[in-house]
Amino acid sequence: MNDKLDPLFKPKAVALIGASAKELSIGNVIIKNLLHYNFRGPVYPINPKVDEIRGLKAYPSILDVPGEVDLAHIVIPPPFVPAEVENCGKKGVKALIVNTAGFKEMGAEGKALEDDFLARARKYGIRVVGPNCQGIINSDPAVNAYCNFTFTYPKPGHISVVAQSGGVGAVIMQAFYDMGIGQRMYASNGNGSDVSITEILSYYGQDEETRAIVLYAESLENPHEFIEVAKRVTSRKPILAITAGRTDKGAEASRSHIGGMAGSISMDLIYKKSGILTFGSQEDLCHAAVALSSQPIPKGNRVGIITNTGGPSVIAIDELVSCGMEIPPLSENAAGALRETMLESASIHNPLDVVATAGPPQFKSAFEVMLKEPQFDSIYLNFVTPPFVDCENVAREIVAAAKAQNKPVVCNYMTDKEKWVGTSSILKEGEIPCFDFAETAARALHSLVRYNGIRTAPEGSVKIFDDVDKERVRAILDHAQSKNREVLTAAEVYGILEAYQIPVAPWKVVKGVEEVASAATAIGFPVVIKADSEEIIHKSDVGGVVINIQDTQEAVRVAENMKRMLGGGIRFFIQKFLSKGQELIVGAKAEEGVGHVIMFGLGGIFVEILKDVAFALTPVSDEEAMEMIRSVKAAPLIDGYRGAKGINKEKAVEIIQRISMLVGDFPAIRELDLNPLFASGDEIMAVDARIIL
Amino acid sequence: MNDKLDPLFKPKAVALIGASAKELSIGNVIIKNLLHYNFRGPVYPINPKVDEIRGLKAYPSILDVPGEVDLAHIVIPPPFVPAEVENCGKKGVKALIVNTAGFKEMGAEGKALEDDFLARARKYGIRVVGPNCQGIINSDPAVNAYCNFTFTYPKPGHISVVAQSGGVGAVIMQAFYDMGIGQRMYASNGNGSDVSITEILSYYGQDEETRAIVLYAESLENPHEFIEVAKRVTSRKPILAITAGRTDKGAEASRSHIGGMAGSISMDLIYKKSGILTFGSQEDLCHAAVALSSQPIPKGNRVGIITNTGGPSVIAIDELVSCGMEIPPLSENAAGALRETMLESASIHNPLDVVATAGPPQFKSAFEVMLKEPQFDSIYLNFVTPPFVDCENVAREIVAAAKAQNKPVVCNYMTDKEKWVGTSSILKEGEIPCFDFAETAARALHSLVRYNGIRTAPEGSVKIFDDVDKERVRAILDHAQSKNREVLTAAEVYGILEAYQIPVAPWKVVKGVEEVASAATAIGFPVVIKADSEEIIHKSDVGGVVINIQDTQEAVRVAENMKRMLGGGIRFFIQKFLSKGQELIVGAKAEEGVGHVIMFGLGGIFVEILKDVAFALTPVSDEEAMEMIRSVKAAPLIDGYRGAKGINKEKAVEIIQRISMLVGDFPAIRELDLNPLFASGDEIMAVDARIIL
Repeated sequence: MNDKLDPLFKPKAVALIGASAKELSIGNVIIKNLLHYNFRGPVYPINPKVDEIRGLKAYPSILDVPGEVDLAHIVIPPPFVPAEVENCGKKGVKALIVNTAGFKEMGAEGKALEDDFLARARKYGIRVVGPNCQGIINSDPAVNAYCNFTFTYPKPGHISVVAQSGGVGAVIMQAFYDMGIGQRMYASNGNGSDVSITEILSYYGQDEETRAIVLYAESLENPHEFIEVAKRVTSRKPILAITAGRTDKGAEASRSHIGGMAGSISMDLIYKKSGILTFGSQEDLCHAAVALSSQPIPKGNRVGIITNTGGPSVIAIDELVSCGMEIPPLSENAAGALRETMLESASIHNPLDVVATAGPPQFKSAFEVMLKEPQFDSIYLNFVTPPFVDCENVAREIVAAAKAQNKPVVCNYMTDKEKWVGTSSILKEGEIPCFDFAETAARALHSLVRYNGIRTAPEGSVKIFDDVDKERVRAILDHAQSKNREVLTAAEVYGILEAYQIPVAPWKVVKGVEEVASAATAIGFPVVIKADSEEIIHKSDVGGVVINIQDTQEAVRVAENMKRMLGGGIRFFIQKFLSKGQELIVGAKAEEGVGHVIMFGLGGIFVEILKDVAFALTPVSDEEAMEMIRSVKAAPLIDGYRGAKGINKEKAVEIIQRISMLVGDFPAIRELDLNPLFASGDEIMAVDARIIL
Repeated sequence: MNDKLDPLFKPKAVALIGASAKELSIGNVIIKNLLHYNFRGPVYPINPKVDEIRGLKAYPSILDVPGEVDLAHIVIPPPFVPAEVENCGKKGVKALIVNTAGFKEMGAEGKALEDDFLARARKYGIRVVGPNCQGIINSDPAVNAYCNFTFTYPKPGHISVVAQSGGVGAVIMQAFYDMGIGQRMYASNGNGSDVSITEILSYYGQDEETRAIVLYAESLENPHEFIEVAKRVTSRKPILAITAGRTDKGAEASRSHIGGMAGSISMDLIYKKSGILTFGSQEDLCHAAVALSSQPIPKGNRVGIITNTGGPSVIAIDELVSCGMEIPPLSENAAGALRETMLESASIHNPLDVVATAGPPQFKSAFEVMLKEPQFDSIYLNFVTPPFVDCENVAREIVAAAKAQNKPVVCNYMTDKEKWVGTSSILKEGEIPCFDFAETAARALHSLVRYNGIRTAPEGSVKIFDDVDKERVRAILDHAQSKNREVLTAAEVYGILEAYQIPVAPWKVVKGVEEVASAATAIGFPVVIKADSEEIIHKSDVGGVVINIQDTQEAVRVAENMKRMLGGGIRFFIQKFLSKGQELIVGAKAEEGVGHVIMFGLGGIFVEILKDVAFALTPVSDEEAMEMIRSVKAAPLIDGYRGAKGINKEKAVEIIQRISMLVGDFPAIRELDLNPLFASGDEIMAVDARIIL
């Protein structure tokens, strides 16, 4: 797979079909960018009306180009694109960037043109980026490909960016540029008609020089393939993403802008399942990428703090602790060593305040001692540049000490960078990631810890239960579908649950009133009786549900009543009435193209008022199921509270996994709710359930 | 009050006691800063050993200076400071900045020196900033005072900064500088021995050119005075603050660094009561200050969005909606008007996507139409600068349209500012606040809405209840204090609650077993009986509490048992046993120097597991009490849930206010808990309570 996108990212010669002599036109800007960025191969402007563009000989057609061309831009209007793709095929072009807009995103006519040129490209085995896109950049000095009409020229570096939205991609590229951080590769694929974000991720994943990948996507064509590829990549290097469309309004804007499946909850879950680090802000993401592309990954969340100023250290600690980081005390040994080397007014603790007058020897010792402390996994540094300190040599000591140990260092660097050029460049060349604020440095450090969490998280396994009765489920679903029913009857729902060994309160379905008493007696009172029929959907609205029935006499009376009211066609669904125990909810909901989202929560107010629920995508592994249970805010109730016994978490995990398998085996199930389940003693049993096709 | 700090912020002549010819020493840097910043008055270096510093004549003593001196820096070692303060008094100096460190913060000896020089300053009516501080800056071109050893030179502007920590102050000053944002005044007062943060806030409040104030404080000397002054200031202009020490570890670092009262929860509550906008990050705070110092305050939270790029608009909407902003649709009229003026590919909705090719006429129309829409209180703009657009004239149209309407505009400005200098400076001079990221622009806009909320919040009133029996409470407390007791007996606690008309479940205290039956009967069964004595503290541990007693027989048996086990000295506290209703908790806790923090929450898991509680500082107004009740996450339970009647919120507000008054009247009460209260029907009654002195 590695070299499949080489003609795109490492072109040897680039042609521009639709090159223009007109300044500021796309057909001119791309030529300018290629030249300005010092592209290593030849650039061929294609334009039948001019001889020369920006000093380069122009050719009437791609077919007239004397040398080989592996990558061509197409910037001509849509109707002319298919013919030019045909020409590219004849020429032996291997990859195309179709910058032109006005295809699928503009309706049926555009889509037909897109389909047309894609078919021709496929015929010749040409890979296509776009249409309606920016293109790619590769800063590798052996390539220097700026096949894009943006206007920021990244220096070589180790962060690669792939963005569906060129607008967001450009903002991120500019942000790294403004921070003085180099970038490796960049791609924005617009409509994504051929080369997908997933392929680009895979390509970046195998690029040795790419140490961190930034991703912005509003939709994914094939989420399953994406998850598989992204998982492989994140095991080697971090992928960082913004979750777009996390609010309903945002998702709506995303739909109207890209026309695809909207972000919403499932993008977040896809990212989570892939081991992708998600961020609420582009700036936090960029900062994290800087840290992740330059620092070793810490083994844990314990931070040693070195500071030469007070207030920013308070702010840093607030942020670190809020992120869940730990700040263990200095060891006695370390404190002893530091007492020898620090200035008198220094504060020998963690945080270690070396004070503003500390010079190179103090910083050298501070870093050497702190980095060696086994109880620190990383070092956070507040560094203000006092005019009366030899800051350049301080910076050199920091860099040298950091290099000698395999622990990450991040720095809140408080200075006027225009003035402290020497110090700044020593830190930069020493790959100490520097941030302007204590909070941002703290959050960048936390991203390293998050990535360590992802890399070391136990794999988890998706259990395949072999005790399930698929045929029974299939028969029930086939029957319901044959009647065009979307809502299953109680007997059908409980039949399906039984077939997948999902524990439910004991139940029976009987046809006649005369069987009700014996069925209820067999189950044991109290019971619930529900009128069950394919016609009655909102049962309780029509008197079709009576709970807490105490004896046979009452049971018979209830059944007779129901029959009188609802007609002879009904059956009686009789179930043990449970009312004690901790209410739980497990649900599943189909998400277009993704599979199902599984939900877990405590019942009642926890779901309805506090929205305290956890989600995961199918197939849910045991680890994911356990994580769902642990991550609800009310988790202490699950563990047991005020002396009450907790619920059986292994049983809950099994139920979640069985539901996950059920909806995976039968994607026709659009919605399934076990609401509530009652957990009592060691048992968990569903006492109400609903399935919608 | 206005001119009291004028000698400090608008000095006419500045002397520097301890001036030094040594480059990079503080005594040299301050001279350099004053000269570099073009201070309007004379600068007098004071140093008996040299004749000249940086081209200025040096004087052996302040007493030798020929002209008047209103402000003097002191940078000499602590032991020499008192004598020089004396000299300053003789010279008629009005204000001092004591930069020297090594006073109170270093222990008893330093404190004695600090007390000494302060007494001398007071004798002469000299105001002192510091010691252990940076000093002040005033960018007013008529003053140009840079009385500080920092190294950032702010341009004139409308934001003033006061920071206890010079480190944090310098970071904020640098951040504004890096954004190209001017500043008005700056002060960092270190130990704050004389001139307080409160005084400086008040001074900034009355400075016409200061439109927004940035505050960083880790502790406050007199919180009550601070609240009073800050409330007055925030009614006219916004104060923005970072809450330092919001985590325990952060508070600990703050204590060790400033030696004062730590941040913790109370700083946040002090800020809230003062109407101060608080921020979790310095950067967000700086961005908000830029918006607040340049834009009109919107009337509400409804935003019109104009964008010329897709993805960033999705991100902006996510952030705006997450902040609680609304994005109403365009009116039909507006949509009609825009259809006339926009490019064909524009998307005529809110967000209005003018598309990347939009030029000055499209932006002009977009702004004119959107700003006139009555359902938009503000405009959010995404502006990327395409090379093929006349961006300078776009910027001019934006500025002109914004100036013509009294609604705020904020801009996510996506560009390379080094290249788009013209466009950038038109936006800057037009006071359109520009931010690099969609999220940061959205949050800055939200800060304007937050400030509107503060300014328009109803005042609220602190009710003084005249039906309380203060004498009875005083007698109870005097008695307990005379016995050196910290924990009050049940009879004392309920006596105090009764005296303040705080509703409790009916109760009686009786001495003998023979009175128990009749007391319980009078209250009505079921009852609780508690053994009550000054010696028994943990009653339930020793069998001193029995609940849910059903009849006289059981009551007598319980009482006899208690007497046998706990001795003849006990009394019996008998109370109606309630077990139904919604559990609530109201608590009060004394906070050093602040008064009391009042807590409200729902009982049980809501407090113990979900930590779902609200706090306010005494005295709690009716509005604050109602806000506490509304702000807990479980508030829907209070309003009524699943058909259940809600609790009587007016009663809850009254209880909170009565508790607030009680602890305000009797600060000796360190802790008070009503836990739980039961709300049932229209009633709320405490069924257990505890008071600690």
